[in-house]
Amino acid sequence: MAETTYPSQGFNTVNRYKHQATYDVETIHTIVNTTPVLHVSFVPDPSIPAPIVLPMIGQMGLSPTDQAAGSEDWKCYLHGYVSSRLMRLADDAVKRGEQGLPLCVAATKVDGFVLTLTPNSHNYNYRSAVLQGFATIVEDTAEKIWAMELITNAVVPDRYANTRVPPDGAEMQSTRILKMKITGASGKVREGVPEDERKDMKREDVLDSVWTGVIPVYEKLGEPQPGPYNRVKEVPEHVRKFVDGENERREKYAFEAAHKPAPLKRPAKKEEGV
Amino acid sequence: MAETTYPSQGFNTVNRYKHQATYDVETIHTIVNTTPVLHVSFVPDPSIPAPIVLPMIGQMGLSPTDQAAGSEDWKCYLHGYVSSRLMRLADDAVKRGEQGLPLCVAATKVDGFVLTLTPNSHNYNYRSAVLQGFATIVEDTAEKIWAMELITNAVVPDRYANTRVPPDGAEMQSTRILKMKITGASGKVREGVPEDERKDMKREDVLDSVWTGVIPVYEKLGEPQPGPYNRVKEVPEHVRKFVDGENERREKYAFEAAHKPAPLKRPAKKEEGV
Repeated sequence: MAETTYPSQGFNTVNRYKHQATYDVETIHTIVNTTPVLHVSFVPDPSIPAPIVLPMIGQMGLSPTDQAAGSEDWKCYLHGYVSSRLMRLADDAVKRGEQGLPLCVAATKVDGFVLTLTPNSHNYNYRSAVLQGFATIVEDTAEKIWAMELITNAVVPDRYANTRVPPDGAEMQSTRILKMKITGASGKVREGVPEDERKDMKREDVLDSVWTGVIPVYEKLGEPQPGPYNRVKEVPEHVRKFVDGENERREKYAFEAAHKPAPLKRPAKKEEGV
Repeated sequence: MAETTYPSQGFNTVNRYKHQATYDVETIHTIVNTTPVLHVSFVPDPSIPAPIVLPMIGQMGLSPTDQAAGSEDWKCYLHGYVSSRLMRLADDAVKRGEQGLPLCVAATKVDGFVLTLTPNSHNYNYRSAVLQGFATIVEDTAEKIWAMELITNAVVPDRYANTRVPPDGAEMQSTRILKMKITGASGKVREGVPEDERKDMKREDVLDSVWTGVIPVYEKLGEPQPGPYNRVKEVPEHVRKFVDGENERREKYAFEAAHKPAPLKRPAKKEEGV
């Protein structure tokens, strides 16, 4: 059976604000899979400890190919180009007999600006996930097409089937998919009302003069704008449903997060003690 | 005089979609300073080429301290905690006599989902910036307070002066600010209508059946929600002005970007040839 939590190893243990930390597999996968841009870091030259971080499109999933091979561990699939440095580095790592290129991937969603009495207590409502692992290039054609569909449908559900598919030979050649095996992962979630320190909560002058509250933040999808060569008069059902459904869901999340109890006031868990 | 472009060195040269690349200092600073979360990567152990990437709050600016010292180069200031690994690593690097901890910082804004005839041509309208450099901890008290104000006001303009300030001794002790000297930077901007390959633009069946256009995307600020201990009845002017002004500006940008000419159809520049 697949594990329901990621191992908390030294490198991915959350040390600050532990009560906001999660190692829950489903929570982490959801954060990654609802974030439109992932930030992917790697070290281009192992002899120099200077990393690069780049924005990429990606998704976590369990391919039929992996399932058939008996694996239940989700991988992170990242979309790229044949000529990109990242792809060359992953290729080189495998050729050297290594298990892949060491990668770290972060996904972050801002849900609100939390305004408190003093700058030091200001915060964000947010959800973030960080993955570590090793990436290789997907060579299996069936798995590659599966991943292309996964990533396209992550932008707009059902989009893949509503476009000209399958990819032709040139498209298969020019696209590469990185597959990252996860060796460690962690997430952090902050939601709730503002929270100030006791010293400021005693100050009548401060309480009387500083507005405290949350500005909800969410990624809004605007009315779809047809392009110059579009011939389909109605915005199709898969696009319409996505825009309306997501806007409702995202707005609801950000506003609800703004009214939940503050994290530090929730029942303490064993591992707390920041 | 300050340079108006960043040097295009090997490590930050944009090789893919060069016509979307920029090294313009003002463009890069604006992308960084309007992105609520920066993704910061570093290598925790120089003997292992495995990076970490973390979400952080930061801003670029030129401090009065640097100005007084004759510098005109903007630095990237990042907010952190005394105990964090990143701060310890920066401290250690300086103690070893190095110029700082090698960092890479990315800022990315999604402005739209660009839906084309075929998955391969799907794209985002977006703005991204990547900075590379070396980070040290800000020790000068005046510069540290200046940076705290810069970062607080980046979340909501004028917020700092509308809270209980200045920070007290304990707050100054528990907060650390990283200052990153920029050694290279680049940006990428994609805006415009969808764009498909010639082979698909000739397919009447595809043109007749696939909707093409842009879904504008922007970060929306919801109605400010007062917290449980707020006593200030009216949402203050600095918050109201920010929410209303930003929503208008962001919506306008995303919709305008959705209607601009496609990048590849713009006049070719010398360095093009992807």
